[in-house]
Amino acid sequence: MIVTTTDPRDGRQHPTDLVETDESGVAAIAGQASRAAQWLFDRGRTGRAELLEAVAAALESRRADLVATAEAETGLGRARLDSELTRAAVQFRMFAAVLRDGGYLEAAIDHAADTPLGPGPDVRRMLVPLGPVAVFGASNFPFAFSVAGGDTASALAAGCPTVVKAHPSHPLTSRASADAIASAVRDQGGPEGVIAAVYGEQAGRSLVRQSPIRAAALTGSVGAARAIQAAIDERADPIPLYAELGSVNPIVVLPDAAASRSDQIAEGLFASFTASGGQLCTKPGLAFLPTGPGGDRLVDTLRAQVADAGGMVLLNERIRDAYESGAAALEKAGARLAARPRIDAGAGFTVAPTLLEVDLPGLTAEIADECFGPLMVVVRYRDVADLDAALAAVPPSLTGSVHSGPGDDIEAVRGLVDVLTARSGRIVFDGYPTGVRVSWAQHHGGPWPSTNAVHTSVGATSIRRFLRPLAWQNAPDWILPDELRDEYTAIPRRIDGRWVPGIDRQP
Amino acid sequence: MIVTTTDPRDGRQHPTDLVETDESGVAAIAGQASRAAQWLFDRGRTGRAELLEAVAAALESRRADLVATAEAETGLGRARLDSELTRAAVQFRMFAAVLRDGGYLEAAIDHAADTPLGPGPDVRRMLVPLGPVAVFGASNFPFAFSVAGGDTASALAAGCPTVVKAHPSHPLTSRASADAIASAVRDQGGPEGVIAAVYGEQAGRSLVRQSPIRAAALTGSVGAARAIQAAIDERADPIPLYAELGSVNPIVVLPDAAASRSDQIAEGLFASFTASGGQLCTKPGLAFLPTGPGGDRLVDTLRAQVADAGGMVLLNERIRDAYESGAAALEKAGARLAARPRIDAGAGFTVAPTLLEVDLPGLTAEIADECFGPLMVVVRYRDVADLDAALAAVPPSLTGSVHSGPGDDIEAVRGLVDVLTARSGRIVFDGYPTGVRVSWAQHHGGPWPSTNAVHTSVGATSIRRFLRPLAWQNAPDWILPDELRDEYTAIPRRIDGRWVPGIDRQP
Repeated sequence: MIVTTTDPRDGRQHPTDLVETDESGVAAIAGQASRAAQWLFDRGRTGRAELLEAVAAALESRRADLVATAEAETGLGRARLDSELTRAAVQFRMFAAVLRDGGYLEAAIDHAADTPLGPGPDVRRMLVPLGPVAVFGASNFPFAFSVAGGDTASALAAGCPTVVKAHPSHPLTSRASADAIASAVRDQGGPEGVIAAVYGEQAGRSLVRQSPIRAAALTGSVGAARAIQAAIDERADPIPLYAELGSVNPIVVLPDAAASRSDQIAEGLFASFTASGGQLCTKPGLAFLPTGPGGDRLVDTLRAQVADAGGMVLLNERIRDAYESGAAALEKAGARLAARPRIDAGAGFTVAPTLLEVDLPGLTAEIADECFGPLMVVVRYRDVADLDAALAAVPPSLTGSVHSGPGDDIEAVRGLVDVLTARSGRIVFDGYPTGVRVSWAQHHGGPWPSTNAVHTSVGATSIRRFLRPLAWQNAPDWILPDELRDEYTAIPRRIDGRWVPGIDRQP
Repeated sequence: MIVTTTDPRDGRQHPTDLVETDESGVAAIAGQASRAAQWLFDRGRTGRAELLEAVAAALESRRADLVATAEAETGLGRARLDSELTRAAVQFRMFAAVLRDGGYLEAAIDHAADTPLGPGPDVRRMLVPLGPVAVFGASNFPFAFSVAGGDTASALAAGCPTVVKAHPSHPLTSRASADAIASAVRDQGGPEGVIAAVYGEQAGRSLVRQSPIRAAALTGSVGAARAIQAAIDERADPIPLYAELGSVNPIVVLPDAAASRSDQIAEGLFASFTASGGQLCTKPGLAFLPTGPGGDRLVDTLRAQVADAGGMVLLNERIRDAYESGAAALEKAGARLAARPRIDAGAGFTVAPTLLEVDLPGLTAEIADECFGPLMVVVRYRDVADLDAALAAVPPSLTGSVHSGPGDDIEAVRGLVDVLTARSGRIVFDGYPTGVRVSWAQHHGGPWPSTNAVHTSVGATSIRRFLRPLAWQNAPDWILPDELRDEYTAIPRRIDGRWVPGIDRQP
């Protein structure tokens, strides 16, 4: 079947020169990935770091073409896509630094020693690649969470060839991204199969059933995760699925913050919930704002901003329809319409941003449900003491945010943070959850339903998903990986229980 | 229903004063575990380290009673159980050291900085406890993989209250172990619910469906893992199951090793496959031995040792029956009987150790199947070049072992290690897989079907199973955990991408 692409700005569908990958095509690609694994492993950390840097350079050298292609397929706008391509390149470069540092290997050496249980053998441990990985591209990040995204960068860094199931919202961008990465692989002398893309729903399900595939990563919906898990369950040997799913990302604004910074917070909230058409997994979907003059002013400002906003182009018809039916469901469940501009819907998947409002006692599970797109529900609370219970009824999320002022009760902040800690993966203070920093300490994950895993999909430690430990017992020196030999000192290691930093990296 | 206990030495079943835990009992225990989590967390790393040391002391102070109880329930023998109790205490003490070291938190600080994507906020990350954990006790380790086992030690270290489903082979040992741990908790001022045991199959399935339970760990069979996973799949929110399952643990003896150390290796193999009645997940089930004089001598010595051996008491009727039918199935599949002593079966679950033999071309998937108990299949090979393909047909295992001598081809060793690396979690050189060292660098895990996870169940890093990352963005100092404050220096941390060792721990 021919793969089509749709411009969400006018809703027109166009045929492409791509066809959906059939079962035998998927099997062939998985086989190539399997054969490419040895090359990737043999390059070692330095060689893979160079490859990732070459990928970053290849992406940037094709920036104009990649951004134009993605703009026509996603309607996300040139500025956002330009910045997202930079982010994709930054991610590849970050993993090059992760490889050079080497700490991600968790290398550990226990020399032979007498123990309370008798003589203990020499045991050395580090992480090794899992094998080829299946990545499911996300609709909302054609670069940073798709073929050239963080899952691919971390999997390649780990030493795992990667096959990406292209998202149907941006097949041409996916192909162009795969081409860019493949060209960097070729320039480094690498074989086919280090990177590949497959197209079509059926190809995605087929992919995770291929025996060479050793793990899968998804940024998408709970429904997509269930479908992929069902395909994985058909395997004789289970493989891990790392899924980053839905999230409502509650934000709490305490009374003194509202009183002292109402305009600033209104502006921040508006920007955060409408950025990229609200199509971010970290979009704040619920904002708890106090009653009283500070909260009223904040809501008035927000309302005015939303009323003045223009239409926003969503990624595809399904997302547009889900947004409109989701907004209608929230209103039916009792959320009042606070603001929604009249827009020229015209052609394409353009929608109006929506601000809804509910008084805290009226916050139900239906209203706390995620609505993907530029919609936020303001929850007005009268008493800070009611917030803990209210937040405990909001589904666990990737993030939870608290805005406070010097006049707010410090114990209330502490209590809120405790509740949010139990129910999210990142706590944001006096800020907004969107704009996830790509760095060593980042964590992008959280309790179900925000993810299904105890791992992150953003930041240096996301590489851990594609590695498994291996131990060598009484191994002769010549068979050990360099990183586990006694004389090797370039990476941080745990030796006989004690952390020893990599001395090449110390000042 | 009354819980019974059986002495495997005479096969007699006795009622106990325990009853199977019913649904409401399980729910009450899960609720207590949930309420105990805060106490455990609030003690911090040092407080939990003290608790674990108190648990180790409590186990040792009850040694005589615990060992006698376990001996009557498992028939494993006093020497083995005495050593296993020491191992259990060692495991609690090791996790106390892990807590004091603090590196397991993976603490990382990225200070606010300009990035290629604009100003980056301050982000700090470390691991936090998942919440209450369900542990399924193993039949074959009444201490070290049961109520007082490594899963419990690592979960409590992580800060997770633990509910253990007692194995039906040793309910009284399980209760006595839970009592010992609970007494240490009480001595430290802790509440009910930090540790608990439940009894009965139904209670185990009910346990993993309780909403406070956030993870499950099992050492057992693939069938047990499937049943527990099916119960987990009934939850609205999935939780991880870390399962350590079956393993055949192939051992390859290369020609020069056989020629130069045949007696020593025969002795080592015999001890390894019959230790604890062969009821160890690391028992070598397949030994590849060369044809020719060295291999013949090795097999002759092994055969003589097995023929001279006495009967061995297995843990329970099910394991005894599975051993006998498994051995019969292997013989039916074409493995020749090489040695099996005549024994006085008498009462109880006593069996004869069994040595089978097959020529390499006759090694089938049926013969490569695990048979739990004192049985090993010798596979005679003519050509070292045939081993890679033969090993690739053996199911992935916890371990793979290679014995070589100075006259063996180094490239053959390298090739074998590559094959074993892809198909196991620990490579043992010139040794035996049983006797897993409990240490920092240990890894006890491997590709399916040996485990379902990319984590270990033995060694310091097994704590990672019960932790999840949490990030703090732009957090005020006073809300941060001590370990994430700038001025804290006692633990190893990654600061702005660079490993900084804990200075309190440096010389």
